[in-house]
Amino acid sequence: MLKTAGAGGIGVLMGASGLGGFLSLTEAAEVKEQTKDSIPFYGNHQGGITTGVQDNLYFAALNITTKSNTEVIQLFKEWTEAAEQMTKGELLKGSSSNSFIPPKDTGEAADLSPSNLTITFGVGPDFFQKDGKDRFGLKAKQPEELRDLPAFPLDALEDTWSGGDICIQACADDLQVAFHAVRNLVRIARGKAVIHWAQTGFQRTKQADANKKTPRNLFGFKDGTINPNVKKESEMNEKVWVQPGDGPDWLVGGSYMVVRRIQMYIEVWDRTALGEQEKTFGRHRDTGAPLGLKNEFDTADFQVKDEHGQLMIPADSHMSLAHGDGKQQILRRAYSYADGMDPKTGSFDAGLLFICFQRNPSKQFIPMQKRLAQNDKLNEYIIHRGSAIFACLPGVKDGGYIGETLF
Amino acid sequence: MLKTAGAGGIGVLMGASGLGGFLSLTEAAEVKEQTKDSIPFYGNHQGGITTGVQDNLYFAALNITTKSNTEVIQLFKEWTEAAEQMTKGELLKGSSSNSFIPPKDTGEAADLSPSNLTITFGVGPDFFQKDGKDRFGLKAKQPEELRDLPAFPLDALEDTWSGGDICIQACADDLQVAFHAVRNLVRIARGKAVIHWAQTGFQRTKQADANKKTPRNLFGFKDGTINPNVKKESEMNEKVWVQPGDGPDWLVGGSYMVVRRIQMYIEVWDRTALGEQEKTFGRHRDTGAPLGLKNEFDTADFQVKDEHGQLMIPADSHMSLAHGDGKQQILRRAYSYADGMDPKTGSFDAGLLFICFQRNPSKQFIPMQKRLAQNDKLNEYIIHRGSAIFACLPGVKDGGYIGETLF
Repeated sequence: MLKTAGAGGIGVLMGASGLGGFLSLTEAAEVKEQTKDSIPFYGNHQGGITTGVQDNLYFAALNITTKSNTEVIQLFKEWTEAAEQMTKGELLKGSSSNSFIPPKDTGEAADLSPSNLTITFGVGPDFFQKDGKDRFGLKAKQPEELRDLPAFPLDALEDTWSGGDICIQACADDLQVAFHAVRNLVRIARGKAVIHWAQTGFQRTKQADANKKTPRNLFGFKDGTINPNVKKESEMNEKVWVQPGDGPDWLVGGSYMVVRRIQMYIEVWDRTALGEQEKTFGRHRDTGAPLGLKNEFDTADFQVKDEHGQLMIPADSHMSLAHGDGKQQILRRAYSYADGMDPKTGSFDAGLLFICFQRNPSKQFIPMQKRLAQNDKLNEYIIHRGSAIFACLPGVKDGGYIGETLF
Repeated sequence: MLKTAGAGGIGVLMGASGLGGFLSLTEAAEVKEQTKDSIPFYGNHQGGITTGVQDNLYFAALNITTKSNTEVIQLFKEWTEAAEQMTKGELLKGSSSNSFIPPKDTGEAADLSPSNLTITFGVGPDFFQKDGKDRFGLKAKQPEELRDLPAFPLDALEDTWSGGDICIQACADDLQVAFHAVRNLVRIARGKAVIHWAQTGFQRTKQADANKKTPRNLFGFKDGTINPNVKKESEMNEKVWVQPGDGPDWLVGGSYMVVRRIQMYIEVWDRTALGEQEKTFGRHRDTGAPLGLKNEFDTADFQVKDEHGQLMIPADSHMSLAHGDGKQQILRRAYSYADGMDPKTGSFDAGLLFICFQRNPSKQFIPMQKRLAQNDKLNEYIIHRGSAIFACLPGVKDGGYIGETLF
């Protein structure tokens, strides 16, 4: 009954899982993948918000081209069906071997597992009204909180990386799977919506997760240490999910997403002394500990001074300003990007697609970003090139569709 | 002695590996990663050519700015040391906690495993002479085969995606690791070389490999079915590695790399009937089999006709033209790319960073591409935006340096 996979080999015993017997590690990994890497599309909330961060992102902002409310509803219904199938790792329904029509599914994710794909839909301020026009008879339903973000000092926003009527955030542990999802959704939208901008991203690999290490951003610093705990429902209800009474009922269970495309001046950073880098973030680079402390998760004390009477964690450090009075917390879910060379500067076009979720932008992201934009020492090394805000819709029940509560 | 990881859990028995006892699947996977995902930098050939294809690519073409031969040699020596350390997953040597200097290593790959990182260096025609000028006294050593590729019909090449004095191809199962490698090498080159263009890529995931499936390109077709067998040394010597007598001795054991940035008109393709798509490639989409056959690896017969007397595999199909008289074979090692939206067209800027290796471009890639550029049915759906050729240097022995045989 008990056999190993041979000298030097690694055998896997499938405990009480019902599969029985020994498998090679590869086979076991496959079993694991097939059974464990699919995240249900239907639920109280959309996936991709409190979901454990996947390795890859394909993000797209779309503009609606149809003027018909009915067509938008139809689109959201079709998207719901497609998204549900793709998160299961299935080919889109209706794919056939009929030679005379284009395939329903573009096929590049065939043979690949669901890869923990999540697809998150949101609507921007322009979805409700554009140039003062009530586009789909929904103007009265626009939440007070869903307004274009205020202009922040030092913003260098470009239209080509900003705004959008709708967003689709596809996250997966395989970029081909994430790209496939957005591509097929855009395809379904033909005649109704077009891409406005799109961005790939990468981050926090399975490796870092497996090693229980906080992933690092492209400045080499750990990023996300003090994120709220996505496993605590009460914390998520307090900080992330829109609650009854917060605004219009249709968004209860949804969340506001802020997206900022932040280019990092990597070459400048790389010529900066370690001490300066650490004062900029307010943390030690190697350990991730707040300055003066030993461990990443030690509680920062923003009053402690060094032997020269200077604050140990400078008041203009990113950490100190982001913390502020400690009242604003957001759920960060950012991805790094590396888009080749920036022809304007001859440097890497790389940085962070900053994405965060919150219940209340005016009390969370906006005051935090105001402080950062004015004083953050990090501003010497970064520039905000794009900006958008979306109301991510509540989750969909089986049989329902995305945006059902809105229409 | 024998215990499982609990009800429903998966325990791993470490056979005769000496580790003994049971580990969780995660733990076992970590052990495997730590011991198995480093590819030695030193060897007879460079890595990243016949190496099993990793998940991610960061490719950079650089231009040299120094005029000093000595400085170029110094750069290649420093690159060798750094590349060797990074492929081991180490921080660059000399990294210290000295606050007063910039860190030697930019840090974003700390905590990450080597991820099968390979770094492949090559030199382009301009490395030897530019505008007729013998730049480093090496003009006489320029191989006859290392010339700018001829202009092909339908080429729409852009300077921003073409050429380069030097290439660095970093491949890894983690994009952060690949990016980190190129970034640190570019950093080391400061004052001696600058980036000319760069491209991220993704492809053939671990998943597809584990399932023994040929990966698919962004048109949904299997790509790489008839690649030469990298495990057969004789085949590699015949088709990939430069042999004594082929040209200058300094390149023996190296290989010529051709790079083409091929944009795919995804939206047009997606509106094309399956039958047309299949006739374009010459294969069935789902199985990958040559048209009229059942299995992916069935041998194509380019003479077989259908009941209407038409060739089953059309003469202008990609497969038929690539095959030609069957005499040219190249080692393809391409990566897909998805760069967001193409502002010129409002479509996805996505496609293939085609990379291939060969012993002899004038007998391999060039005649093949001439046929394809003239008649390939696929040309309705793709456009070549970038082009470059490099002589990838021979492998480096421990203690030696990249390009040693050349200088």
